[in-house]
Amino acid sequence: MEFFLGIDMGGLGIKIAVVDIKGHIIDAVSFPTDITKEPQDIIKRINDEAQKLKNYSKVKYIGFGTAGDVDSKKGILRYAYNLPKWKKTPIKTLLQTYSKRTVFVDNDANAASLGAFYLDTKTKAKNLVCVTLGTGIGGGLILDKKLYRGSSFSAGEIGHITIKYDGLACNCGNIGCAESYLGAKNIMKFAADFLKNRKSKMLYDLTDGDYSKITPKILFDAALRKDETALQIWKYAGDKLGILLASVINIVNPDTIVLCGGLSLASKFLTPSMKTAIKNRSFKAPQKICKIIFSKYSDKLGVVGAAMFAVQK
Amino acid sequence: MEFFLGIDMGGLGIKIAVVDIKGHIIDAVSFPTDITKEPQDIIKRINDEAQKLKNYSKVKYIGFGTAGDVDSKKGILRYAYNLPKWKKTPIKTLLQTYSKRTVFVDNDANAASLGAFYLDTKTKAKNLVCVTLGTGIGGGLILDKKLYRGSSFSAGEIGHITIKYDGLACNCGNIGCAESYLGAKNIMKFAADFLKNRKSKMLYDLTDGDYSKITPKILFDAALRKDETALQIWKYAGDKLGILLASVINIVNPDTIVLCGGLSLASKFLTPSMKTAIKNRSFKAPQKICKIIFSKYSDKLGVVGAAMFAVQK
Repeated sequence: MEFFLGIDMGGLGIKIAVVDIKGHIIDAVSFPTDITKEPQDIIKRINDEAQKLKNYSKVKYIGFGTAGDVDSKKGILRYAYNLPKWKKTPIKTLLQTYSKRTVFVDNDANAASLGAFYLDTKTKAKNLVCVTLGTGIGGGLILDKKLYRGSSFSAGEIGHITIKYDGLACNCGNIGCAESYLGAKNIMKFAADFLKNRKSKMLYDLTDGDYSKITPKILFDAALRKDETALQIWKYAGDKLGILLASVINIVNPDTIVLCGGLSLASKFLTPSMKTAIKNRSFKAPQKICKIIFSKYSDKLGVVGAAMFAVQK
Repeated sequence: MEFFLGIDMGGLGIKIAVVDIKGHIIDAVSFPTDITKEPQDIIKRINDEAQKLKNYSKVKYIGFGTAGDVDSKKGILRYAYNLPKWKKTPIKTLLQTYSKRTVFVDNDANAASLGAFYLDTKTKAKNLVCVTLGTGIGGGLILDKKLYRGSSFSAGEIGHITIKYDGLACNCGNIGCAESYLGAKNIMKFAADFLKNRKSKMLYDLTDGDYSKITPKILFDAALRKDETALQIWKYAGDKLGILLASVINIVNPDTIVLCGGLSLASKFLTPSMKTAIKNRSFKAPQKICKIIFSKYSDKLGVVGAAMFAVQK
């Protein structure tokens, strides 16, 4: 039987897993990302850790998913803002040298998309859009059951679809990107502003009266306890998410949209206004065929999807 | 040598052509669409006209592109607002019966996209987005050199990407679609409003002082004669087009965008502000790789693309 190694590297942690051809994790390990270390030392450690995993001896292909801007053809991490030492790092070449195995490198959003395809849909989706809801809003496209990368490996930047051309400034330089409304920090900023003209004893207490300290977790806890202001903030975010997904439905016409990432903890508070916006804003036929789900495997999508890079090749 | 028959049916006219495998037109005929006639009579006439075309005897496959909402799997035209008698019309079945050949049916935007792929890029594009600029803003996607239809044949509705979620109402029921800014009638409406607070002797004379009579042709002629107001209206439209294309570039990452349709007559007036918006609003890597061209074959794209439905199958 054939096995695959998946690696998921973010600014905070690294996950490594041996995975079978159906996407089941056989054995796994994880450790924090030491961003002060040299990239080759980290890759060496990854290789050392991998060798201790069950069935690693039966692994021929390795997939490496990483945050940042990746040239997946050359297997180079061009740049990642949360991994300052990694610049034009030839991950593929380095890890192939250490592991003596064929390595595929791609970005974490593409990995998550493949992970969602295998884990959330059991490969049954034909056309899938994965949207990662975190500090940034990322995305990936599985079209005709294959990862679609586009002409410069840049496809699927769903967070940078303009939803209001004269709206809020986005980090990317554009005005009115979906991310400038939906990114976790941007929702928190909206919340802090919103609270200037509202009263919420609960949020006041939870933030010690300093609304700039508000976090998604605090907002989630307050909503759980039915705080009206917290619920309205999630409603606002769900509406913006629905506006974005309506455009995605109209252009990509997927059968499945998988939502994952940190903010999906608040799925139940996001869902009603998200659904209303999609209903009002997208065409009937593609809307009807599109299932929208929150991933049940958020913490595994990246590492499993990375292993699947090799299966897809 | 193998030949293909292409049919392009719109609310105004029908074009029929025998086309070779490279997309060259061998022989063609066209006639007005009589919307008072029964669909089967029109299809019969199409079949009669086709038989007179050179090399029709060597045609095995027929492609039929039509305006409206098409089920391309069943070959049925579900509905077309400018063809009132055509409702759930089984074009494929009818034309196969008359012609004794295999028929493929799809919508006109998909036909135009394939036409652009063959004629404007000589099949060299890998990932192409075609945008039709007319009363409505349509679109089609060629991904990995193949027509991408999505999960309910609805993909590529580029005109119905939201560019301003609290903006102008769109015919589709959404708020702030690209089409509600860029559709020909919507640009004319903007022009009439814009002229309330401007002076343009030229546009006043060309419309006999009734700005509701303004047309794209009038606006084009005035811009050619360097009328400042006309130039500003085209600049406004080009900016909105660029906003839309920036989103398309960020999500689809195509190597080529082909613009076609009636409004592309004004390409030289649309281009500067379109380019500025794309430069300011899309990511560098996908922006750099993406060529944007106005089709040189606007009037042939539909009929040649329809013929190519058969080649793609």
